[in-house]
Amino acid sequence: MATVLQSDLETVMSAIGREARAAARTLAHTPTSIKDRALCAGAESLRRSVDAILEANAADMAAAQQRGLAGAMLDRLALDAKRVEAMAKGLETIADQPDPVGEEMARWQRPNGLDIARVRVPLGVIGIIYESRPNVTADAGALCLKAGNAAILRCGSESFNSSHAILEALQAGLKQEGLPLGAIQLVPTIDRQAVGLMLTMAEAIDVIIPRGGRSLIERVQRESRVPVLAHLDGLCHVYLDKAADPKKAREITLNAKMRRTGICGAAETLLVDHSVAADVLPGIIDDLTEAGCELRGDEAVAALDARVQSATEEDWTTEYLDAILSIKLVDGLDQAIDHVNSFGSHHTDSIVTEDRAAAERFLAEVDSAIVMHNASTQFADGGEFGMGAEIGISTGRLHARGPVGAEQLTSFNYRVRGSGQTRPT
Amino acid sequence: MATVLQSDLETVMSAIGREARAAARTLAHTPTSIKDRALCAGAESLRRSVDAILEANAADMAAAQQRGLAGAMLDRLALDAKRVEAMAKGLETIADQPDPVGEEMARWQRPNGLDIARVRVPLGVIGIIYESRPNVTADAGALCLKAGNAAILRCGSESFNSSHAILEALQAGLKQEGLPLGAIQLVPTIDRQAVGLMLTMAEAIDVIIPRGGRSLIERVQRESRVPVLAHLDGLCHVYLDKAADPKKAREITLNAKMRRTGICGAAETLLVDHSVAADVLPGIIDDLTEAGCELRGDEAVAALDARVQSATEEDWTTEYLDAILSIKLVDGLDQAIDHVNSFGSHHTDSIVTEDRAAAERFLAEVDSAIVMHNASTQFADGGEFGMGAEIGISTGRLHARGPVGAEQLTSFNYRVRGSGQTRPT
Repeated sequence: MATVLQSDLETVMSAIGREARAAARTLAHTPTSIKDRALCAGAESLRRSVDAILEANAADMAAAQQRGLAGAMLDRLALDAKRVEAMAKGLETIADQPDPVGEEMARWQRPNGLDIARVRVPLGVIGIIYESRPNVTADAGALCLKAGNAAILRCGSESFNSSHAILEALQAGLKQEGLPLGAIQLVPTIDRQAVGLMLTMAEAIDVIIPRGGRSLIERVQRESRVPVLAHLDGLCHVYLDKAADPKKAREITLNAKMRRTGICGAAETLLVDHSVAADVLPGIIDDLTEAGCELRGDEAVAALDARVQSATEEDWTTEYLDAILSIKLVDGLDQAIDHVNSFGSHHTDSIVTEDRAAAERFLAEVDSAIVMHNASTQFADGGEFGMGAEIGISTGRLHARGPVGAEQLTSFNYRVRGSGQTRPT
Repeated sequence: MATVLQSDLETVMSAIGREARAAARTLAHTPTSIKDRALCAGAESLRRSVDAILEANAADMAAAQQRGLAGAMLDRLALDAKRVEAMAKGLETIADQPDPVGEEMARWQRPNGLDIARVRVPLGVIGIIYESRPNVTADAGALCLKAGNAAILRCGSESFNSSHAILEALQAGLKQEGLPLGAIQLVPTIDRQAVGLMLTMAEAIDVIIPRGGRSLIERVQRESRVPVLAHLDGLCHVYLDKAADPKKAREITLNAKMRRTGICGAAETLLVDHSVAADVLPGIIDDLTEAGCELRGDEAVAALDARVQSATEEDWTTEYLDAILSIKLVDGLDQAIDHVNSFGSHHTDSIVTEDRAAAERFLAEVDSAIVMHNASTQFADGGEFGMGAEIGISTGRLHARGPVGAEQLTSFNYRVRGSGQTRPT
C-alpha cells in the first residue's frame, strides 16, 4: 500500500482529484447533522482502532529511529493512547462547533427591489501538505469535513503508516453516514513528486495549506499554481512599555517565552523601554534563567546583567522555537512599533502597559495578524480565540489572517432575489 | 518618459516597490477625511487637465490605428470629455463611500476576560495589470487609495500616454493633501518584462489583480509568485424553469443577453425547460432576432425555429462577449443545475420561475459567485450591488468572490485586550 509506481503517479493523483471534486459537490449540500455524526463516528472508530494505530506508529517510530531523526521530530511523531484519545476528542469538539456553511453573512435590499444575501459556502477541495505530526490527519480532515470541503492529505513520509491507520478510522465514520470516501483522502505514496503534482492541480484543488517547516512552506509558495494559505514564521515580540505594570511584565514575559517554546506564538524578542529596564529586567532575567532560558541582549542589556550574552544582528530576525530570548532596549513606543514592523513576521505581538493610549496606538499601528495588550503571545491559537480547532495561524493577508478554523475554510456567494428586474440601459 | 533602458528595469521596479511599501505604511493610518479630500482633489484635477488628457489619448489612438487595432479595442481606448468627466465623478463616488478601514467586523469576550476584536486593515500594496481601458488608471488607483492601499499600476502599452496623463491628475490630488506620491504609481515603461518582474515581487506587492483578456489573466495565474485575485470568464446562464412567468422570461432574457454584450455579466447560454419551450421561445427568438442577436440551439431548439442555427459542443463552453446566444432545452431543474455547474464559469447565473422552491434550490445548488432569481445577469456589478465602484468580479473562491470594491481590498487583524492574562500550561 505504501508505494506506487512512478509512472502511475499522475494517474493516481488525477483519480484522487476527481474523487475529491465529486465528494466536494456532495458535501456542499450535506446537512450539518450528517457531517457531525460522521465526525463522531470517526472519533469512536479512532478509539476502537487504538491498537492498530499504535502498531502502525511503532513501525513509523522504528524506521525514524533507524534513520536517526532528531528527538524533537520523534516526539512529534510519537503516538500513545492519550494522544489517540486527544484526536478523538478533537473530532467531537469539531462536531460540536456551529456549521459555518449556509450562514447568511449579510443581507440587504436595493432601491430597485433586488434582495441580496451573502451566504457562506465551502471552499471546495483543500490540499493539505504536512510533515511529521500524524494527528494533523485527523484534525485537518475533520475541519475540512465540517466546512463541507473535501480534503486531499499529503502526510510526511515518516508518519505514513500512522496517518494511514488514522485515515481508515476517519473513513469508517464517513462510510457509516453514507458519505463518499473521497471526502477525506490520503496520497498513497511517499514519493515527493506527489507534492509537485498537487501544486499544479489547479482544476482539482481550490487551495493548498502547507503545515510544516520553513523549507516546505517556501517550496509550496514558490511552486504552487494553486492558491496557498501560508503559515510562516512566528517571530513574536513582547514590548514592555515605560508604563508597564512590573508584575504583569514579569508574568507575561515568562509565559510568552517559556510556556511552550516550540509553538509559533512563543515570544522570541523582548523589547523594553530604556527608562524602566533597570527596574523590570532583573526580575525577568531571574525568572527566565531559572526556567533554563538563554538570553541574548543588545549592548545596554548585556551591560546591565552578566547573565545576558551579546546579541548579533541576526538575533532580531531569528525564530528560535527554543529556550532562547533576544532582548533589546528601545527609546519609547515609536521605536518599539518600528522594530516590530521591521523585524517581526507579522504574526503575534504584545504590549505590556497601563497607559491606555499607548496600548491603543500599539494595537492600531503594529501590522500583525494578532496584536495584544497585557496578554501572553501564547494565546495565539484558534481554540483560545473560541474558534474551536484550527489548522494553523495564517500569516498571509488574503482570505484568512490569523487562526484558520472551520469558518476560515469557507468561501461565500451572493444570492439575489428579484421579481423580474432588468438593468436599465 | 516612456522608455527605460532594459538594464535599468529591475532597479526601476524595485524602487517603485520600495516607494509603494513606504506609502502603504502611511496610508494605513491616514484619516478617512484626508483620503477622501485627495480623491476629490484628483477629480478636480482631472477636470482641469481634460485638454492634456485628450491630447495624450489622441497620440495613443493614432498609434493604435497605425498598428491596426480592432474597432472594439479602439473603442475601449478612446476618451472624450464625457468619459473624463465620468472618471472624475467616479472618484467623487468613491470618496462618498464609507471607509472600510478600521471597521470592527466582530468583537467578543473569552471566559478568561480577554476581549478580542477583528478589525479591517488595508491589504498593503496592490499591483494592477490591465490592458486598453485608460479609465482603469483612475478607478483602480482611487479604490486602492480609499481602502488605504498603495497601487502599482501597469497599463497596456496602447494606453500608455493616456494613463500617464490621468496619473498626473491623481497625483496632483495626493500632493494637495500631503500624501506620498508612492500611493499611486504607474510603471514607467511599456517593456513587457515589467509584468514578469511584478509577478515575482512578493516582498513588495501583497496581491496582483489582472484586468483584461483571457491570455493576460492566464499568464498572471501561471507565473505569479504573488497571490492573485483573478477575474476570469463570465459564461453566464439564464434558465427558464417550467414555472417561468412568460413576460419575465422574455424581458430578462433580452436584457441579460443584449443590454451590453461585451461585459462579463452578459448571458451566453439560455436553458429552457422542454415543457415550456414551445410557449416561451418564439417570443424570445422574435426579440433577440430583432435586436440583431445570432442564435445557436441544440437539435430540439433548431427544429422549433428556422432562425436558430445548430450549436456545436463548443458553444456550451464559449463566452461570446458578442450578440450570440446558445440555447438548450433541459429536462427539469436538476439537469439545468447540472449544466450550469458543469459548463459555466461560476460567475453569474439566473433562474426565471414563479416556483419558490425551485428558485431556492437553484440559489442553493448552483455554485457561482452570483446566483439570481427573476433578475437579469447584467446586474452582476459592484455598483448595482450598492458597493460603490468595483475593480471587477472575482471568479476565485479565496478572499473576494464576486464584485471587488473597496471593502474587498482590505484584510483584517485581531486586537486582543487583556489585563495580564497568561496561558495556563
